[in-house]
Amino acid sequence: MTHNFVLRFRSPDRPGIMAAVTPLVAAQGCDIRAAEVYGDPETGHFFCRMELVSPVDHETLSTKIAGAEDYLLDWDLKDLAHKQRVLIAVSKFGHCLVDLIHKQEIGQLPIEIVGVVSNHDTMRKTVEWHGLPYHHLPMSDGKEAQEARFLSIIEESGAELTVLARYMQILSDDFSARLDGRCINIHHSFLPSFKGAKPYHQAHTRGVKIIGATAHFVTADLDEGPIIEQDVRRVSHAVVADEMVAIGREIEASVLSRAVRWHAEHRIFQNGNKTVVL
Amino acid sequence: MTHNFVLRFRSPDRPGIMAAVTPLVAAQGCDIRAAEVYGDPETGHFFCRMELVSPVDHETLSTKIAGAEDYLLDWDLKDLAHKQRVLIAVSKFGHCLVDLIHKQEIGQLPIEIVGVVSNHDTMRKTVEWHGLPYHHLPMSDGKEAQEARFLSIIEESGAELTVLARYMQILSDDFSARLDGRCINIHHSFLPSFKGAKPYHQAHTRGVKIIGATAHFVTADLDEGPIIEQDVRRVSHAVVADEMVAIGREIEASVLSRAVRWHAEHRIFQNGNKTVVL
Amino acid sequence: MTHNFVLRFRSPDRPGIMAAVTPLVAAQGCDIRAAEVYGDPETGHFFCRMELVSPVDHETLSTKIAGAEDYLLDWDLKDLAHKQRVLIAVSKFGHCLVDLIHKQEIGQLPIEIVGVVSNHDTMRKTVEWHGLPYHHLPMSDGKEAQEARFLSIIEESGAELTVLARYMQILSDDFSARLDGRCINIHHSFLPSFKGAKPYHQAHTRGVKIIGATAHFVTADLDEGPIIEQDVRRVSHAVVADEMVAIGREIEASVLSRAVRWHAEHRIFQNGNKTVVL
Amino acid sequence: MTHNFVLRFRSPDRPGIMAAVTPLVAAQGCDIRAAEVYGDPETGHFFCRMELVSPVDHETLSTKIAGAEDYLLDWDLKDLAHKQRVLIAVSKFGHCLVDLIHKQEIGQLPIEIVGVVSNHDTMRKTVEWHGLPYHHLPMSDGKEAQEARFLSIIEESGAELTVLARYMQILSDDFSARLDGRCINIHHSFLPSFKGAKPYHQAHTRGVKIIGATAHFVTADLDEGPIIEQDVRRVSHAVVADEMVAIGREIEASVLSRAVRWHAEHRIFQNGNKTVVL
Repeated sequence: MTHNFVLRFRSPDRPGIMAAVTPLVAAQGCDIRAAEVYGDPETGHFFCRMELVSPVDHETLSTKIAGAEDYLLDWDLKDLAHKQRVLIAVSKFGHCLVDLIHKQEIGQLPIEIVGVVSNHDTMRKTVEWHGLPYHHLPMSDGKEAQEARFLSIIEESGAELTVLARYMQILSDDFSARLDGRCINIHHSFLPSFKGAKPYHQAHTRGVKIIGATAHFVTADLDEGPIIEQDVRRVSHAVVADEMVAIGREIEASVLSRAVRWHAEHRIFQNGNKTVVL
Repeated sequence: MTHNFVLRFRSPDRPGIMAAVTPLVAAQGCDIRAAEVYGDPETGHFFCRMELVSPVDHETLSTKIAGAEDYLLDWDLKDLAHKQRVLIAVSKFGHCLVDLIHKQEIGQLPIEIVGVVSNHDTMRKTVEWHGLPYHHLPMSDGKEAQEARFLSIIEESGAELTVLARYMQILSDDFSARLDGRCINIHHSFLPSFKGAKPYHQAHTRGVKIIGATAHFVTADLDEGPIIEQDVRRVSHAVVADEMVAIGREIEASVLSRAVRWHAEHRIFQNGNKTVVL
Repeated sequence: MTHNFVLRFRSPDRPGIMAAVTPLVAAQGCDIRAAEVYGDPETGHFFCRMELVSPVDHETLSTKIAGAEDYLLDWDLKDLAHKQRVLIAVSKFGHCLVDLIHKQEIGQLPIEIVGVVSNHDTMRKTVEWHGLPYHHLPMSDGKEAQEARFLSIIEESGAELTVLARYMQILSDDFSARLDGRCINIHHSFLPSFKGAKPYHQAHTRGVKIIGATAHFVTADLDEGPIIEQDVRRVSHAVVADEMVAIGREIEASVLSRAVRWHAEHRIFQNGNKTVVL
Repeated sequence: MTHNFVLRFRSPDRPGIMAAVTPLVAAQGCDIRAAEVYGDPETGHFFCRMELVSPVDHETLSTKIAGAEDYLLDWDLKDLAHKQRVLIAVSKFGHCLVDLIHKQEIGQLPIEIVGVVSNHDTMRKTVEWHGLPYHHLPMSDGKEAQEARFLSIIEESGAELTVLARYMQILSDDFSARLDGRCINIHHSFLPSFKGAKPYHQAHTRGVKIIGATAHFVTADLDEGPIIEQDVRRVSHAVVADEMVAIGREIEASVLSRAVRWHAEHRIFQNGNKTVVL
């Protein structure tokens, strides 16, 4: 019986990293199926992601890789048989939520959706019909209390990733900080254009010929987190703001689901305020 | 013998405009080959562009169309046999210039290039080899004097359109105002992101996954003029700023040449700070 | 009270068509909000689509427009308040179906879904949860009987458009002929490449770098009907055929929903074996 | 002093390949700047491309790498300081040629153009103005003699890559076979659609909504060689075949220059009738 693992690591860029790591995995009989390494000339950081077929189990292989720790800033070994536990937050618009659930159900996203959090009750019926727990956390409880409940749910559900799928609330700095690298938001504009509220209306007012959406890690700095993925669609003068909203929904759902898949496949590294996707 | 005309007009949106105009052209035996009309629900303006095959000449047809002037804010009748006279301004980077010249030479752009203006002497050899006049207007003459010479050349050459094909000088308000609607610039970013200098370096620093270029009318407000056309290309974390510059060159040339072609085909209308392209 | 109508017509290209039609609508006080006309130089056909705001009702306006019938091959006047009745056919894959239902529910598609037909029972639960009738027409009844029932459902439901949303059955010539211009299929390739079965596997075998999907009118000639819309997505050598299937789902749903929307907005004209979309 | 090398290899996929190779390069003090490996699950081949910064020279490093030859089917070590020698073949259309020359001149393509071959004399003036040798090889000499001269020029010029930049001649099987893996063609369609002559006219006749271009390795099988890169552009019903030709020129030049750059950067591997681009 073999295991499919992803080995990821980051290290200061210097000769010998791959030579330190690859013999350790080879000695256990591991086969490298795919790998990508990238050394950032600006930060001097070296990033690596390797897909391994391993005849030995996670513990055994981990122990061996630990032998190269002198070379590594941080690393982990992920078992692809484990589906990442994902909690989704949503407000009233369900297009990203419906897309994520559908893709998960037909086997297109290697995740387990552990529940849906919302400041509204709008999407309850849909979510529960799919057999998922729905947590209504109204803002009327006060922002602090609401976020405390949100954090408890993340903890209790064992969520490894929280996805803001058009969750129209600004998170507190503390909340953002605690989810650092574990929370992805979809912004409905081609960032850094049109930050803040009503980006499609901003885009319409400016008369752009292309609109877009951006998936990024959530940070305390609103709409400024590391960008994971973006996509765009052409529009003409005849597209009014409301139609941009409609066109944008497809881009948002598509971009967000790619970011979630990459996260679940352990492809995304934070690199300062940017990302490396391997 | 027939003529190929473009009839363009703008009017306040109200019933009867097309009914006032089309019988006038039909009465002269004109055939409508293509037409597009657009009523902007926000400004209440109605825009129309019609391609006509006309058995009568420009003067005859113009006189007749003038009969509908009560309905029209402004209008013109353009003869497609006349190639628009275009003056190109450039600094040191020649990729947009070379692209425009090549496309003109192989018959892909219905323009006549009447000359090239530059604040450097870099592109002289290339321009003169193509048989075009080259005007070197160094900034060392002082901005005011330089712009005065630039304006004289526009006037003397009979240029109907001035194209800033990576002309790296900020124009004075007065210069911009005088060329209102007759001057197109290519900005090397996906506006409104990354205004000002070194946009690819800004884009690299922000870590965007898609870069772009924008052709817009020049106005006194830098990088804020009405957008005519935009396009984008996907980049990854591994693309350093200098490579973005290289990738961007193709987008810039492509976007700019489309904007120039549309202008030469009389497709672009200013609509406040936006454009309507018919 | 005003009405929003779409006036569409086709005619032999000759002077005077617009001059014959527009005064008739103007005389009734109709305002043209948008219009596009296209004369095909190859077939000599003239196509026009106009959006009208009309103070008079459908019957009154129709009667007047009929006065220009000498100029028109065919025409109709559609009331945009009427949502097009659409019947969806599906087999086992629900991604296009789910997308169409979701877009209809959130007001992004001006259609009324009158039911879902399938040769399998797979999607029943989903469809019925959305409150739509589900018709299971198994092929075990024999193709002829099955198609007869399918046609009855189209008739009884008053469907104006039948959408094959990954309906994996080849229709008989007779069935196709009867739905001429009223049946849209989504093909999971960038036609005319990779006709027939398993197009993503064909694409993978050929090693293409871009895959796509095509929405077209159904004709007796399999995968040869007039193309309405296409879109594509970039793939690399590392994308195996099954992943292409997954990537392709998004393109299929997006392309098909655009084709359905354009049909519901009365934008599509057949022009021989091609389409004109205005 | 350091050297920038690219190490490429192909091997049967089995454990230990990277562990055999990376210590050899590390022992010489080489730093891996970027690397990508891909194991094709279908062919069982493992492909690797590594960018190395090496303190030792080519001969020293090569000798060491040879120590891992038991693991490798084939490999080479390329010095990025050496610009690949490229011979361009062209007929009457110069857009790809002009684009390649311009990109080479501004430092965007790491190649040396060693000359231009043509069956016409059309592009001589342009080519010679850029200081490049022009070889006019008219077909009137007979195909066999013409190809013999073509091959001599390839040999004498030391061309490592021959680029068919809209060279409108079908090569003999023998000629194709001799240039296996060293000859790239641009086909003006989105292959495998519209093989053979006049692809844009074929595309227009079929009524596709997107056109494209394909760069591929030349093989004896016309338009069937391994695809390296493709790109597309949206068109509407109103774009006649001649305009498609014009639109297509930009796609062709862009796609071809990317394929040439990837070849010059040693990124392309043949993998049966497909390519792996790392």
